Amino acid sequence: MADLDPLVIFTPSGKRGRVARGTAVLTAARQLGVDLDSVCGGRGICSKCQVSPGVGEFPKHGVHVSATALSDFNEVEARYDRIRGLAKGRRLGCQARIEEDVVIDVPPESQVHKQVVRKRAEARDITMDPAVRLFYVEVEEPDMHQPTGDLERLQQALSAHWSLPDCQIDLPLLTRLQPLLRKGDWKVTCAVHQTAADAPAQIIAIWPGFMEAPLYGLAVDLGSTTIAAHMCDLKTGEVVASSGVMNPQIRFGEDLMSRVSYSMMNAGGADEMTQAVRTGMAALFAEIAAEAGTDTDHIVDVVIVCNPVMHHLLLGIDPFELGQAPFALATSDAMALRADELQLGLNAGARVYLLPCIAGHVGADAAAVTLSEAPDKSEDLVLVVDVGTNAEIQLGNTEKVLACSSPTGPAFEGAQISSGQRAAPGAIERVEIDPTTKIARFRVIGSDLWSDEPGFEQAIATTGITGICGSGIIEAVAEMRMAGLLDQSGLIGSAEQTGSDHIFADGRTNSYLLWDASAQGGARIAVTNGDIRAIQMAKAALYSGARLLMDKFGVDKVDRVVLAGAFGAHISPKHAMVLGMIPDAPLDKVTSAGNAAGTGARIALLNRAARAEIEATVRRIEKIETAVEPRFQEHFVNASAIPNSAEPFPILKSVVSLPQVDFNTGGSGGAGGGGRRRRRRG
Amino acid sequence: MADLDPLVIFTPSGKRGRVARGTAVLTAARQLGVDLDSVCGGRGICSKCQVSPGVGEFPKHGVHVSATALSDFNEVEARYDRIRGLAKGRRLGCQARIEEDVVIDVPPESQVHKQVVRKRAEARDITMDPAVRLFYVEVEEPDMHQPTGDLERLQQALSAHWSLPDCQIDLPLLTRLQPLLRKGDWKVTCAVHQTAADAPAQIIAIWPGFMEAPLYGLAVDLGSTTIAAHMCDLKTGEVVASSGVMNPQIRFGEDLMSRVSYSMMNAGGADEMTQAVRTGMAALFAEIAAEAGTDTDHIVDVVIVCNPVMHHLLLGIDPFELGQAPFALATSDAMALRADELQLGLNAGARVYLLPCIAGHVGADAAAVTLSEAPDKSEDLVLVVDVGTNAEIQLGNTEKVLACSSPTGPAFEGAQISSGQRAAPGAIERVEIDPTTKIARFRVIGSDLWSDEPGFEQAIATTGITGICGSGIIEAVAEMRMAGLLDQSGLIGSAEQTGSDHIFADGRTNSYLLWDASAQGGARIAVTNGDIRAIQMAKAALYSGARLLMDKFGVDKVDRVVLAGAFGAHISPKHAMVLGMIPDAPLDKVTSAGNAAGTGARIALLNRAARAEIEATVRRIEKIETAVEPRFQEHFVNASAIPNSAEPFPILKSVVSLPQVDFNTGGSGGAGGGGRRRRRRG
Repeated sequence: MADLDPLVIFTPSGKRGRVARGTAVLTAARQLGVDLDSVCGGRGICSKCQVSPGVGEFPKHGVHVSATALSDFNEVEARYDRIRGLAKGRRLGCQARIEEDVVIDVPPESQVHKQVVRKRAEARDITMDPAVRLFYVEVEEPDMHQPTGDLERLQQALSAHWSLPDCQIDLPLLTRLQPLLRKGDWKVTCAVHQTAADAPAQIIAIWPGFMEAPLYGLAVDLGSTTIAAHMCDLKTGEVVASSGVMNPQIRFGEDLMSRVSYSMMNAGGADEMTQAVRTGMAALFAEIAAEAGTDTDHIVDVVIVCNPVMHHLLLGIDPFELGQAPFALATSDAMALRADELQLGLNAGARVYLLPCIAGHVGADAAAVTLSEAPDKSEDLVLVVDVGTNAEIQLGNTEKVLACSSPTGPAFEGAQISSGQRAAPGAIERVEIDPTTKIARFRVIGSDLWSDEPGFEQAIATTGITGICGSGIIEAVAEMRMAGLLDQSGLIGSAEQTGSDHIFADGRTNSYLLWDASAQGGARIAVTNGDIRAIQMAKAALYSGARLLMDKFGVDKVDRVVLAGAFGAHISPKHAMVLGMIPDAPLDKVTSAGNAAGTGARIALLNRAARAEIEATVRRIEKIETAVEPRFQEHFVNASAIPNSAEPFPILKSVVSLPQVDFNTGGSGGAGGGGRRRRRRG
Repeated sequence: MADLDPLVIFTPSGKRGRVARGTAVLTAARQLGVDLDSVCGGRGICSKCQVSPGVGEFPKHGVHVSATALSDFNEVEARYDRIRGLAKGRRLGCQARIEEDVVIDVPPESQVHKQVVRKRAEARDITMDPAVRLFYVEVEEPDMHQPTGDLERLQQALSAHWSLPDCQIDLPLLTRLQPLLRKGDWKVTCAVHQTAADAPAQIIAIWPGFMEAPLYGLAVDLGSTTIAAHMCDLKTGEVVASSGVMNPQIRFGEDLMSRVSYSMMNAGGADEMTQAVRTGMAALFAEIAAEAGTDTDHIVDVVIVCNPVMHHLLLGIDPFELGQAPFALATSDAMALRADELQLGLNAGARVYLLPCIAGHVGADAAAVTLSEAPDKSEDLVLVVDVGTNAEIQLGNTEKVLACSSPTGPAFEGAQISSGQRAAPGAIERVEIDPTTKIARFRVIGSDLWSDEPGFEQAIATTGITGICGSGIIEAVAEMRMAGLLDQSGLIGSAEQTGSDHIFADGRTNSYLLWDASAQGGARIAVTNGDIRAIQMAKAALYSGARLLMDKFGVDKVDRVVLAGAFGAHISPKHAMVLGMIPDAPLDKVTSAGNAAGTGARIALLNRAARAEIEATVRRIEKIETAVEPRFQEHFVNASAIPNSAEPFPILKSVVSLPQVDFNTGGSGGAGGGGRRRRRRG
């Protein structure tokens, strides 16, 4: 054994092999294919290659490790420890040399491809592998006898030390190259963008000397209403700051179609909206960088997800064609751009990646949901619903994935509701109606107390009660149905019919009073039959889209339902099923994915391979256009009712028992349609 | 034979083969690899595939061609003939079908890779193969059931019909794609940029429908003093317009080093110069397009050649480093850019290609000269000299090529000469001095008459005689030497010594009067001993550079000399040799290449393969830096004298016999140095 080269075993990978005595740990790791980070290439500068050598018996590995297995702490390590501090037991992998058999642990922070753990049990972790990485190089000085350019010598260094062949550079960075190299005394840290190990590499930023500070990327969910951005450390994957702003395009129209109309009716309107959203994003990014204590110069990569209209408006493409059949996208593939093409105010070399669009109504945001929720990798049949002004619905498993978009309209976002408002402090978000007393209690955003609990009034003193938001109106309608205040056609019974003095006659229909502080100058919040109608339309659209996909898939039930989107996170699955928003599924199989689009953006930001993956997945998704599917109309007509227990919802029946009431007296045109349609179906 | 498929023979290629009866000529050409153009892909729209079928006996090919060998003139051809006219005997290759054995001639204008003939016998012709070509496609209309983007369907069409896989597109063009496709009713003509058949393809411009007009490219010679551009038809290779302007940077400094100084001494000076040259180029390009009767939107490709300082200033790189050893270029490789990165005011998608730089003092202009004069392909040893403020000198043959730059200074351009001026109307450009009478006669730019010929005074009435230009001063000095007015050290003899009453004492030295119209208020033009000194320095630099390369090559003579550059075209080889500007060579082996840099630009513009070729060639050229070569200094010291017949110039002796005179009386310090140096050498 004495003559054998020393054995090195790396944990946690378990990779092992014999290396020449005196080999540096970093070199050994590279030889054995162990994931050990290094930015400086082994010069003892970056400390990214820290390892924890073990000492003693390792019966599992069959080795004894002596205290002299690695070379002594050397001068470079001592200096590093003195200046920056090296945790006890840690060594710099580029300095410590292997003298005898040894077991070496690579801690997560020293792994290039570390795992970013996602909190939800069903979600896959993210493997760190960003498109932009830092490389420290020492560049040969110019020589009159070898008159290559500075760039060519930099390229040579990147190729020789980092196997990055033929790195290209943007012109604006090239113009700054010579002073940067000289300021760094021919040592520079380069940010290199490369979407795959064999893809072309691009030098996008250069700092003189060794640049300590982390690089950041942004995962951006560009919605019609809000723009949300998460700033991630491209080394650790950690979200270091998050922020959101209202989409400044709102002044051109609340919903997407009104923005499309604005561009149709105003020359230069699309450009105006493009400028507005770009300016808004740049401001948001500057703010988020400040919040994280850095500047936008350290933001080098951005992944944006958005619906097709926002996608086009962001790119400067008039969304005209998206406003009319056949809803042709200018481009559906993923886009790779420079951030300065979109004037986003980041590092001049920063890159932007837009996920592919699935169809004219199913955008990059839906693709991001696909990436996050991976229906294509699900063994059981999963329905993924992202609810917004349009609902993007996906149904699939490993066999295939279908997708469609359904025009739910803005009712779920509190618009078109008499007392509706956006989900903001003061909005009623949860509702319970006592089936006996028919009296409602509720919760308001900004407080955890129910309205009948002590201290509620004080808790809401600053916000007041200002209206009802999407999740609140859904619960209110479902609770009204369960309390017998509403029949299956969606008609509110009268005070007499229901025996509730919270019902009041309201024109030709009835309304239900949730809250009345008008005597004190506050709000009076009621659910009108018009509100019920709006919610019925929205939920019918959603349900019909899901049913259409089920038809196309050839199934009449799904194994599980994932509610995506900020709104999805707030919907109560029980109420959604009572309302008939989503097909029935066991209650514990209805989960919320939170902002899955944003998560998908983060995945694509942190793992470059996920980009190619989602591009391939999107190509395989079967797109269903609801607008041309006769069955969608058919489902829609049938879905406007609110289920009763006679309906074929066996699972729902186990959840609640719905009263069999019918308030349609024949005289009320407002709600009659639903009733007639129900009859036609029967 | 009757059952065999018909035989088709294409001329001039001689390619032949049997094709299925009824095959279109264009299809047959493609099957047999015959170079037959088509932009519309065989739809009878573009008429680029015109052919001339033969009829009768073709003993050479062993076939008889009957009048019915091709299908009858069809409706498409008839309509084309009616509307646009089809020359007699011509057929549209995409319409005419092969029924029987046939011989088909492809006229040059129907060949994609036609030859552009260069006038000089020793120069290779240019094979047309531009980087930008037009492709007409019909794009599938959008379909709700197949929701790909418009771009993806365009890409699909380019791939299916033209084997152009995965064409990319610039964002600004993408924003215009949807209306363009609809305006063209899903038929568009695309300009596609591709640097090689297997290189990535980029859609850079789109026109609705079939776009008739030609595309143009610019071959630009960006000099320190002037910017010259040739606009070429990218189909025929023809130069359709040429124009030049003064380089607007002149206001920052006449020569390059004064511009480098300007940037060093003025904050933002480099940017100011960058803006100036870009604005100047954009104005020139607009003018040249107007002159050609088109607009800049049809200019889609530009090749620029220039010296390293202009190269950097054009790109927006501060030329600081080029002003001091080790003269480091920011980048030496060829550059491919979008024209709008340089704000050149062309088609938004136009591309720019800059040839590689050879070294810090040997720029892309020298590389263009290499491409045009191809010393690397020469069997005999050729010295290529491009004379300007710096002389770029190349020496080589198929074995190897050496290159250097020599600081000749501006004397050859008429600067630093007492009566010097640029080569412009009114400048003396040719000089002859009668060896007996010592009286000069001369010619002036703007007239073909010599000053002693009848009608000369009228001929120059409008321009006058304003000064002496570079070629004029070279001839004057050489003629003065041959007439015995000048000794070998460069000293002008006195009136007494020379017996010429055109010599007059001028301070401590003498001057020679060429022309005196001062009595009439005109110019008085003399050659002073200071002028001689300036020319001696310049020619010594040039000669020393050539000698240095010869030393490095291990030769003491060259087989031929090529004088490149506008100036080179005006130098009389005999006078250049008398002066000792260039090493001796047989007079008939000294030729002018005209603006070889501009020609090199044109080659790279018209033939994309030439780009890769010159990039590879430049990498192989051995660069010699004169500044650090002791032998250059040595040669320089020895080369300031003007040869006499005792010098080892055997070939020169056959040209002229130089008088052995020495006017150095010991009292004239001005010329003594040269004399002393000569003695030191001996």
